[in-house]
Amino acid sequence: MTPARARARFRDGLVISTAGWCDGFTQANLITVPHALAWDFLLFAQRNPQPCPVLDVLDAGAVAGPLFDGDVRTDLPLYRVYVDGELAEEVTDVRRWWRADLVSFLIGCSFTFERALHEAGVPVRHVEQGVTVPMYRTSRRCRGAGSVSGPLVVSMRPIPAEQVADAVRVTAAYPAVHGAPVHVGDPRELGIIDLDAPDYGNPVHREPGDVPVFWACGVTPQAAVMESRPTLAIAHAPGHMLITDVREEDYQLRVTG
Amino acid sequence: MTPARARARFRDGLVISTAGWCDGFTQANLITVPHALAWDFLLFAQRNPQPCPVLDVLDAGAVAGPLFDGDVRTDLPLYRVYVDGELAEEVTDVRRWWRADLVSFLIGCSFTFERALHEAGVPVRHVEQGVTVPMYRTSRRCRGAGSVSGPLVVSMRPIPAEQVADAVRVTAAYPAVHGAPVHVGDPRELGIIDLDAPDYGNPVHREPGDVPVFWACGVTPQAAVMESRPTLAIAHAPGHMLITDVREEDYQLRVTG
Repeated sequence: MTPARARARFRDGLVISTAGWCDGFTQANLITVPHALAWDFLLFAQRNPQPCPVLDVLDAGAVAGPLFDGDVRTDLPLYRVYVDGELAEEVTDVRRWWRADLVSFLIGCSFTFERALHEAGVPVRHVEQGVTVPMYRTSRRCRGAGSVSGPLVVSMRPIPAEQVADAVRVTAAYPAVHGAPVHVGDPRELGIIDLDAPDYGNPVHREPGDVPVFWACGVTPQAAVMESRPTLAIAHAPGHMLITDVREEDYQLRVTG
Repeated sequence: MTPARARARFRDGLVISTAGWCDGFTQANLITVPHALAWDFLLFAQRNPQPCPVLDVLDAGAVAGPLFDGDVRTDLPLYRVYVDGELAEEVTDVRRWWRADLVSFLIGCSFTFERALHEAGVPVRHVEQGVTVPMYRTSRRCRGAGSVSGPLVVSMRPIPAEQVADAVRVTAAYPAVHGAPVHVGDPRELGIIDLDAPDYGNPVHREPGDVPVFWACGVTPQAAVMESRPTLAIAHAPGHMLITDVREEDYQLRVTG
């Protein structure tokens, strides 16, 4: 299915996780904030590129951009609307919330590198087990920007010890979607007490010989924005991404230097 | 010489090009604008990362940041101050122009990749000839952001045909300092009529067998800012950079994916 066709189905009301949709096309996290907060947020992203890889920023009030031919207010399957930093509603269309001062950020999503891991023969356990990747708030702080600050949030994938090097090599080639792991091994170093009690997503079963590997996670910017309690913020609902018209290879480095 | 020592000498009044100073440490272009323009400028940089590789952005009014231990108002050998987009003066200290709303951008500089080219055995003709690299305004427009827009400005280095591939490979490993060339060969494709009449810098003599190779240039953001005629802007004087405490290797990719 083409991205345009998928977006049309979501625009028509289909609500479904976009995982596995439109193989080979880049999916993006969405976060939309008032212009008054946009400077702090873009600066936060610039200072924390691993958790906040910005793929594009739309002009204030704009509903489309060069990465997709559509309408950012309707073309995702499901949105979350936050008022004063609290979840107000989950909806399939945010046109009634739209304002001319809203700035939309499209942020890289780990679906892209998970496909690359899979193609490299590295097992992706949470996909095998049919659950959402487990995510954890760590004891590491991001470098703040104005009112936007918060902890580094990481996702964890158990990787067979003999394939950890492959997992690093494969994901390092995708800096626009979080890049290489931030940590391999002992979760306590990140302030994570219990891997089976993630802060977001689901616990994942580790096979014998698996090592926990941690990547910077796109929940980081969302958590940081919410700490500033913006009057209004709009985000994709977890797993319900914007499917862009950009091929995943376009974000892959081909550097050998 | 350490970067701290070099900055102290510039602070004490030494005026000299920083080319060749503090081998192995990253030098940065400086551009400082009022906060009111900073959003457009940061967005412009985000949209045009090859000519505008942002290494760091200081908080509004801040004179130091994590990349260097000093004072951005005094620690460069020479500054240019622009009022309403016109050059007002060239000074060694901009403290008298300082305002609490000024935001400083540190932008990657090609000195870093020129050292890498030299170490890889690729000749850097303008250095051999003791002139400033020739730079050209091209017919390609950058993607604009609000009031900030302008043409892509490129630098040109003549490279022996059999070493063009090496030059691409080496510089591609430094995306934070403009990365791989944007164009190899025919200058007319970029709207450049006469290589011997650069818009900035000096003409450079091409040896027999040299091919003109073009890289995105850090003059691009400066030219784009000036087109918006900001009430105040402060930049390094050409060649008189901020020497940071960050090693050049820190900006080199080591990806093999």
